[in-house]
Amino acid sequence: MSTGNTKEKQISKAVIKRLPRYRRYLGELKRKGIEKISSKDLSELIGYTASQIRQDLNNFGGFGQQGYGYSVSLLYDEIGTILGLNKKYQIVIVGYGRLGQAMASYISNNESNFHIAGIFDVRQIIQDVEFKDAQIMTCGNLSGFVKNENIDIAVITVPAEKAQIVADTVCDAGIKGIWNFTAVDLDLPEDVVCENVHVSDSLHALAYYMKDR
Amino acid sequence: MSTGNTKEKQISKAVIKRLPRYRRYLGELKRKGIEKISSKDLSELIGYTASQIRQDLNNFGGFGQQGYGYSVSLLYDEIGTILGLNKKYQIVIVGYGRLGQAMASYISNNESNFHIAGIFDVRQIIQDVEFKDAQIMTCGNLSGFVKNENIDIAVITVPAEKAQIVADTVCDAGIKGIWNFTAVDLDLPEDVVCENVHVSDSLHALAYYMKDR
Repeated sequence: MSTGNTKEKQISKAVIKRLPRYRRYLGELKRKGIEKISSKDLSELIGYTASQIRQDLNNFGGFGQQGYGYSVSLLYDEIGTILGLNKKYQIVIVGYGRLGQAMASYISNNESNFHIAGIFDVRQIIQDVEFKDAQIMTCGNLSGFVKNENIDIAVITVPAEKAQIVADTVCDAGIKGIWNFTAVDLDLPEDVVCENVHVSDSLHALAYYMKDR
Repeated sequence: MSTGNTKEKQISKAVIKRLPRYRRYLGELKRKGIEKISSKDLSELIGYTASQIRQDLNNFGGFGQQGYGYSVSLLYDEIGTILGLNKKYQIVIVGYGRLGQAMASYISNNESNFHIAGIFDVRQIIQDVEFKDAQIMTCGNLSGFVKNENIDIAVITVPAEKAQIVADTVCDAGIKGIWNFTAVDLDLPEDVVCENVHVSDSLHALAYYMKDR
């Protein structure tokens, strides 16, 4: 049940997109004290077919036992390990407007593997205020901070027109991942990983599906 | 070039997910004053193959002219029409914490087709404050407001444990669409459309892709 096998390298993006969802539901079951679940019951809960679920999890070596189903807690932990959630990431939030504040609260309340090490904003007025143990600093300190504190991830919640310059700054400073909430797609070095949350794309898809209602 | 044809009914979810992205890039080109673009140049910009782009747009009747490429402004408008962005939607925001406030600003500044008609929150302290022309009301008024004002979409930005009860309330009141920002998947009537923005799924996918860096 090694998670560092070479097979993992070929996992499709679609499977990776589904894993957090599995983990989310398993976390819910765990909180309710449920210890095991069949792929059929998991299927009804999550809304994927049982065969899809078995196929997805087989990518990583199975986990299920014939006639028993899946151990909720084991599967939850294993998916966490696969996703890299068995370690701690140091993050900075760049842009501390309403969205930056919302994400700071969200991460600090729900994502114990992600530690907010620093927060950056252009506005003088909120400098030196603190969020938990993170100081709020001016953007001039961003590059040095990312370098010196070995920051893994930058959460970008600045206005769209500032997104690329922030991305350039953190990439030059050696960032490994970017969580981009702006409406633009960033131009990044090959070795920097990026996940976009383009909320307008989701809103427009909603409008499409509502058209004929 | 009718957009109300029956072919549209069979468009895959994957194509629909890509359309807002096309429109976003076309909007950018339009702002820069660029009038036409080849599928090859569009491909380099968006990062899909030219053949993928032609195939996607052919689903809706083409739009391109051999040897000319696409008219940026025409294609932008047509995709908007396909997405249902040629009309106005009345929306309510339920939950006016940091995320609700961030989404209110975002929608009001960027999404002219979506009008915030009302905002709801449980906290007495922020009642009767206004956001633009929208009043902030207690959740007790939600059902009546959705009914009387013919609200199309509810944006749900309440804590996860309150999400289902809010969804039940707005569905009973006749809502047509839900934009769900909570960590839970909602149990909804067949005829209600829902788009989820599960930010943690995106963060965990980011962690996965960073694992081997």
